[in-house]
Amino acid sequence: LTSKLPHVGTTIFTKMTMLANEQQALNLSQGFPDFETDPKLIQLVSKAMEQGHNQYAPMIGAQTLRDTIAKKYCEVYDVAVDATAELTVTSGGTQAIFTAIATVVRPQDEVIIFEPAYDCYAPTIELFGGKVVPVRLLAPDFQIDWDYVATLINSKTRLIIINNPNNPTGKVLGREELIKLGDLLSGTNALLLSDEVYEHIVFDGASPQSVLEIPTLRERSFVIASFGKLLHTTGWKIGYCIAPPQLTQEFRKVHQFNVFSVNTPMQFAIAAYLEDISYVKGLSDFFERKRNLLKDGLRGSRFKILPCEGTYFLNIDYSAISQEKEFEFACSLTRQHKIATIPLSAFYKEATNQQVLRVCFAKKDETLLKAVEILNKV
Amino acid sequence: LTSKLPHVGTTIFTKMTMLANEQQALNLSQGFPDFETDPKLIQLVSKAMEQGHNQYAPMIGAQTLRDTIAKKYCEVYDVAVDATAELTVTSGGTQAIFTAIATVVRPQDEVIIFEPAYDCYAPTIELFGGKVVPVRLLAPDFQIDWDYVATLINSKTRLIIINNPNNPTGKVLGREELIKLGDLLSGTNALLLSDEVYEHIVFDGASPQSVLEIPTLRERSFVIASFGKLLHTTGWKIGYCIAPPQLTQEFRKVHQFNVFSVNTPMQFAIAAYLEDISYVKGLSDFFERKRNLLKDGLRGSRFKILPCEGTYFLNIDYSAISQEKEFEFACSLTRQHKIATIPLSAFYKEATNQQVLRVCFAKKDETLLKAVEILNKV
Ligand SMILES: CSCCC(=O)C(=O)O
Ligand SMILES: CSCCC(=O)C(=O)O
Repeated sequence: LTSKLPHVGTTIFTKMTMLANEQQALNLSQGFPDFETDPKLIQLVSKAMEQGHNQYAPMIGAQTLRDTIAKKYCEVYDVAVDATAELTVTSGGTQAIFTAIATVVRPQDEVIIFEPAYDCYAPTIELFGGKVVPVRLLAPDFQIDWDYVATLINSKTRLIIINNPNNPTGKVLGREELIKLGDLLSGTNALLLSDEVYEHIVFDGASPQSVLEIPTLRERSFVIASFGKLLHTTGWKIGYCIAPPQLTQEFRKVHQFNVFSVNTPMQFAIAAYLEDISYVKGLSDFFERKRNLLKDGLRGSRFKILPCEGTYFLNIDYSAISQEKEFEFACSLTRQHKIATIPLSAFYKEATNQQVLRVCFAKKDETLLKAVEILNKV
Repeated sequence: LTSKLPHVGTTIFTKMTMLANEQQALNLSQGFPDFETDPKLIQLVSKAMEQGHNQYAPMIGAQTLRDTIAKKYCEVYDVAVDATAELTVTSGGTQAIFTAIATVVRPQDEVIIFEPAYDCYAPTIELFGGKVVPVRLLAPDFQIDWDYVATLINSKTRLIIINNPNNPTGKVLGREELIKLGDLLSGTNALLLSDEVYEHIVFDGASPQSVLEIPTLRERSFVIASFGKLLHTTGWKIGYCIAPPQLTQEFRKVHQFNVFSVNTPMQFAIAAYLEDISYVKGLSDFFERKRNLLKDGLRGSRFKILPCEGTYFLNIDYSAISQEKEFEFACSLTRQHKIATIPLSAFYKEATNQQVLRVCFAKKDETLLKAVEILNKV
């Protein structure tokens, strides 16, 4: 057997989490909360199971959850989403991303991605015979040169992938930049995949944003989001994809043969839990406090803190401490100081060495305080 | 946008279930139980959530579930499965099938499938550029001519897909036939995908079987099974794939970018529930009673009953009643007699008209008795 993905190894998230467990280190690598899920939400799952919601959900998702999602877009963004024609519930954001790429990318198609990039984009594109065209952005600003991006778009450009707010950089693309992207794409055949799984985690007074608000983008976009990061349940694997009816129709052709349908009781529970949308509105404050706890705690340390406008992640520059490469430094931090992080270079196709580590602050205050204590000693 | 799957419409299961709901008809079309899930199993999910199992499971699946599955293969088949190197937990059988095909099928590869075939095989093969080579089997015996199959195998044959026990035919391939298949494949590059989601539903004294018991097949097989049919929880979407280490390694490269991981609390609950494997052993008797209820009930009807050795499904021949085509007849049965079934022709690429309908008997006795009453009047 010759591999279809010869360059792919185990993801960095699995690697670092395994090392953290082996070393009994504080695990601030993989992005998941270490605090409890709301007991009310758990009870709603139990109730859904007891009420008999244990068989196949509709292929496109349970109606009640699709309605709830549509309502959210209406209330938060004042945008109308057709819950029947435009929305498909998926097995987490990852399956939505995979399925969207599978739906549109053919051999020889080009797909533009921005690096540092979440690690599932490139191999999925390659699995469908597409060519990855990376735009490399660098710390500390990760600024996009849109004129340069314009030169990369041609008749072969099938898809552009953005992740906003961005994992791992913590950057948010503002409305002007999104409009600029819309202008760039007008008149081309390129579609957009907008990975918005961190949409409700934005800081310093910013409001959530979605490309659904930008008509020139909406008409060509797969918008992907998930409940894992929203409800502190990364292991429940419920996400969704919103796209115009014609794109949704094609998306579902792949989706129905990829997983057919998605966990039923969790869908009912999430729908019931989010009936009152105010929960969503409190999320940014909740995580901003945690970001600040980490950021402020590191003020006296030898790490330089990079800007963080959203997501679970704060990036820290260790160049004042060591000249070691990122992966090696991250491993020795885990082994010697018992704290695991993710090397930024893992998000680039050709490894950079910017001496930056990504630290997850979706953790109990207690965990963050311990992390601060450790990192201050490095 | 030109469709990558232009011939694909909505699955027949969704279509017939929607028609059944619209017509308030008895739904014996899509294969799912209408009876309750064991409250003990539901409680185990609640407990897993309360214990905090709500974040990402390991990419390959929770250790406890993988160990439980390996133990099952040991106890039921006396076969050793390496829970770390050979087993991956998936989002149901469907995602395992999709991922296995994605892992090995390249453009121009040929994949042999046996028709009638579960409807996800062909489009998934085509999505990855493969060529479907169908072997057409006909009612009432659906006998395979292995000499003919031998003529189809060539250097382009990448994969053969079997489903045993078979949905929709209810047939079981016996050990001799599997050994014959093993001989056929020896010395070729063809791999096997053995879809065994109904493995524990076999009747009339038969024992469950897996290709894992046949060394010549095991060395080249993706064995796929799921808990939906085993635990009456088709909506929970937990399945798995067993394959030799090298195949598993490639399978996981795709799996990790397709869904990354699978619902965590359900994995823990299923592992705990199946600690005692005796549950599995009672399943055949449970469903055999239901098959008999339907089969015996139809003895006086104008339908001819086809053999049924396993699965959820009984096939019935209506040629003594009508010459209408299957889809049309199934629709009029739903509209006029308020009972929904699946036309056998839906499982063939080029529609046949054998005047056979597939009836799901994974239903409450009460539902089956009502179905018998209705069908006796047709
Ligand atoms: C799917 S595991 C990775 C989780 C995550 O989103 C991250 O750590 O970036
Ligand atoms: C995935 S919906 C179809 C369920 C099933 O296995 C069947 O009805 O054949």
